[in-house]
Amino acid sequence: MSTFRDDGVLAVDWVASYLERVRELPVLSQVEPGEIRAALPAAAPDEPEPFAAVLEDLDRVLMPGLTHWQSPRFFAYFATTGSEPGVLAELLIAGLNQVGILWRTSPALQELEELTVDWLRQLVGLPETFSGHVEDTASTGVLAAVIAARSVNPDRNVLVVSEHAHSVGEKAARLLGLELRKVPADDEFRMRPELIGAEDACAVIATIGTTGMASVDPVPEIAARCGAAGTWLHVDAAYAGSAAILPELRPLFAGWELADSIGVNPHKWLGVPMDCSVLWTRRLEDFRNAFSLVPEFLRSPDDALNLSEVSIPLGRRFRALKLWAVLRCYGRVGLQERIREHLRLAELFEGWVRDEAGWAVAAPRHFSLVCFRRDGSDEDNERLLERVNGSGEVFLSHTRLGGRYVLRLAVGNFRTTDDDVQLAWAVLKREAAAL
Amino acid sequence: MSTFRDDGVLAVDWVASYLERVRELPVLSQVEPGEIRAALPAAAPDEPEPFAAVLEDLDRVLMPGLTHWQSPRFFAYFATTGSEPGVLAELLIAGLNQVGILWRTSPALQELEELTVDWLRQLVGLPETFSGHVEDTASTGVLAAVIAARSVNPDRNVLVVSEHAHSVGEKAARLLGLELRKVPADDEFRMRPELIGAEDACAVIATIGTTGMASVDPVPEIAARCGAAGTWLHVDAAYAGSAAILPELRPLFAGWELADSIGVNPHKWLGVPMDCSVLWTRRLEDFRNAFSLVPEFLRSPDDALNLSEVSIPLGRRFRALKLWAVLRCYGRVGLQERIREHLRLAELFEGWVRDEAGWAVAAPRHFSLVCFRRDGSDEDNERLLERVNGSGEVFLSHTRLGGRYVLRLAVGNFRTTDDDVQLAWAVLKREAAAL
Repeated sequence: MSTFRDDGVLAVDWVASYLERVRELPVLSQVEPGEIRAALPAAAPDEPEPFAAVLEDLDRVLMPGLTHWQSPRFFAYFATTGSEPGVLAELLIAGLNQVGILWRTSPALQELEELTVDWLRQLVGLPETFSGHVEDTASTGVLAAVIAARSVNPDRNVLVVSEHAHSVGEKAARLLGLELRKVPADDEFRMRPELIGAEDACAVIATIGTTGMASVDPVPEIAARCGAAGTWLHVDAAYAGSAAILPELRPLFAGWELADSIGVNPHKWLGVPMDCSVLWTRRLEDFRNAFSLVPEFLRSPDDALNLSEVSIPLGRRFRALKLWAVLRCYGRVGLQERIREHLRLAELFEGWVRDEAGWAVAAPRHFSLVCFRRDGSDEDNERLLERVNGSGEVFLSHTRLGGRYVLRLAVGNFRTTDDDVQLAWAVLKREAAAL
Repeated sequence: MSTFRDDGVLAVDWVASYLERVRELPVLSQVEPGEIRAALPAAAPDEPEPFAAVLEDLDRVLMPGLTHWQSPRFFAYFATTGSEPGVLAELLIAGLNQVGILWRTSPALQELEELTVDWLRQLVGLPETFSGHVEDTASTGVLAAVIAARSVNPDRNVLVVSEHAHSVGEKAARLLGLELRKVPADDEFRMRPELIGAEDACAVIATIGTTGMASVDPVPEIAARCGAAGTWLHVDAAYAGSAAILPELRPLFAGWELADSIGVNPHKWLGVPMDCSVLWTRRLEDFRNAFSLVPEFLRSPDDALNLSEVSIPLGRRFRALKLWAVLRCYGRVGLQERIREHLRLAELFEGWVRDEAGWAVAAPRHFSLVCFRRDGSDEDNERLLERVNGSGEVFLSHTRLGGRYVLRLAVGNFRTTDDDVQLAWAVLKREAAAL
């Protein structure tokens, strides 16, 4: 183990110094497609190499090909954080190399998963009728929820989403051979409940914090219609759900306790490294009916529920350990502080945009995402974004609202400060002036 | 970062000392359902706790609830290894916290993934018409392959598997609403090609190294029938595929180059920590047609293929980094040595069983799995296994062959030695005598 200890200290040191300097690195990778691969050998080595050689090539060859999600100046999509306790928990997860298949293949994995998703349930204020487990991503969680929904209503072939829902709904419908119904939204980008037509749908996906502009669908009304029609309601709160740990934001989550299933991604806004997507349901039996299949080679003397019976993969990693580490090392108060800070920074940026001639806020802001644009054509805004991202100083993304090209600045990295947001605004103004 | 460096050294030290003592720990966890959860607080803490408290509770509370997959005395299911370079790579993966969605969100992630699966392709002797990517598990890989197959033949509603295929095939059929046809096997547990009826099937799953007894389906004949009928052939080599890096075993893989898609799990027998399941296909365009969906908020100026366009989840971890680290730090020669050693140990054990009165080998052995039983009833064998596993000294599992309860000993941990296999045999004989 002397090699492991030595290499381990090298690796810890590498990560520590990476996190120390990541703010100064070009946020969006500036390489051309194929460039990284071409710089590496075309075949595996015959003989063993030291671990230090891996670290060396990580610095020398891979580094220019990284887009720095850990940078406090990453404002694209939804900004995330692989927090220190979460990062170290991944080391423990790999060291233990647990494979959760049946309860008995790792009782600690399964019970810690059930416990930590229950801790999070309490933190976000959901009733204890909800139990949960961890999926890799919300894509898988939504697919699983729709599969469970269809098993309850096998004769209904329609999946309903808002025109602003995340593409995972459309993808799930396509993969499962369901018909997709896209419901138009109102002028605040909220799904219009009266157009759902829940009666022939196996499931409706409502979103709290849509991907494009973080709008909030009218969940209470949607839930009422789903309830009356016997239709499964999945609430996608992949990004915004973490913010429900703030009591003052709880009104935005009104009605989500009426859902049949709910997805929230702690790997988005709660400091857990990729991947950790929580899926709660108050219909665990329906999940079990849809997914359970215990072949002979897996039968065991105990009769514990196995998490593989309620999700797609048979084997699961010990992801609960990183959720546990993050919830403990920050505590409720620490996580609330960080999310409040992101809301403050987003509000600050929104104010600058609003007060500056030639710029406009493009959508109501509920969370830490600001949608905005500069007066002018879509092409101008697109060119502006390319220049900003091409500078490497900050990284933002875009969407389309009402047919117009709109810029998005999402605050979500734990290390982001006032200075970083000010820099984003300065770069935007500088590049706009240079256009 | 001083806390991170200090905590990091603690974590590395914890893993190192865990790996040093794991051989002596009870392999199968001996706790009762609910015991671990009951020993932990029912709610998350309000205030931050130090990372050292997580390590402390890992030792004090979680340890008895772990089944030690890292133990050299783990012989159940398929034994695995989270090797040292793989474990440290997970630390880097989490530290970098890359999220592969589009190529541009991490060019290095995507290109290293394409490269390392190509390195592995060469090592196992597949032609370069195959390209690949990494899935979390073979469950997801099989599901994805069947989805691609169905998109090619949307009017065919049957999925064909052998009676000895892994349950992931049956699960995929159920999740997708396909009809499952289970084809009987011959007396060496090989799928009978003449009973496939490929004409109405969208896909056939053939297996090289089945989960129950590591039998090898007659892939060339199955491929010929699939080819004639225009039916997608997926070869599941999740466990055994790693052994194709040995030239002397290559004959067992005859015909797999005719498959449309192939799955091999480096997290099973190649030292990569959970999760890392490689999916190759020579029909990448069909995968892209089935899965690609790039919404507006993800459109980017480059036109690189994004790996999210050929698989279920939108976001992926930087799993390629651990596959890269393992392939480099062992090299082709190092990995071949370890797999040869496992074959030797399995052959040794098989010899002891064959030569001992009252015991019998129950299936032909092709790889590192020995299926055997003690003369007597199924109940006797079941009780024997429970006593052996209850001792905590070693952990084996079981299956059913021709209706009979059969014990399985799978060698697959990099740290397993002659002594460990001898111990397994001694415990088996001791407990059989005590029955």
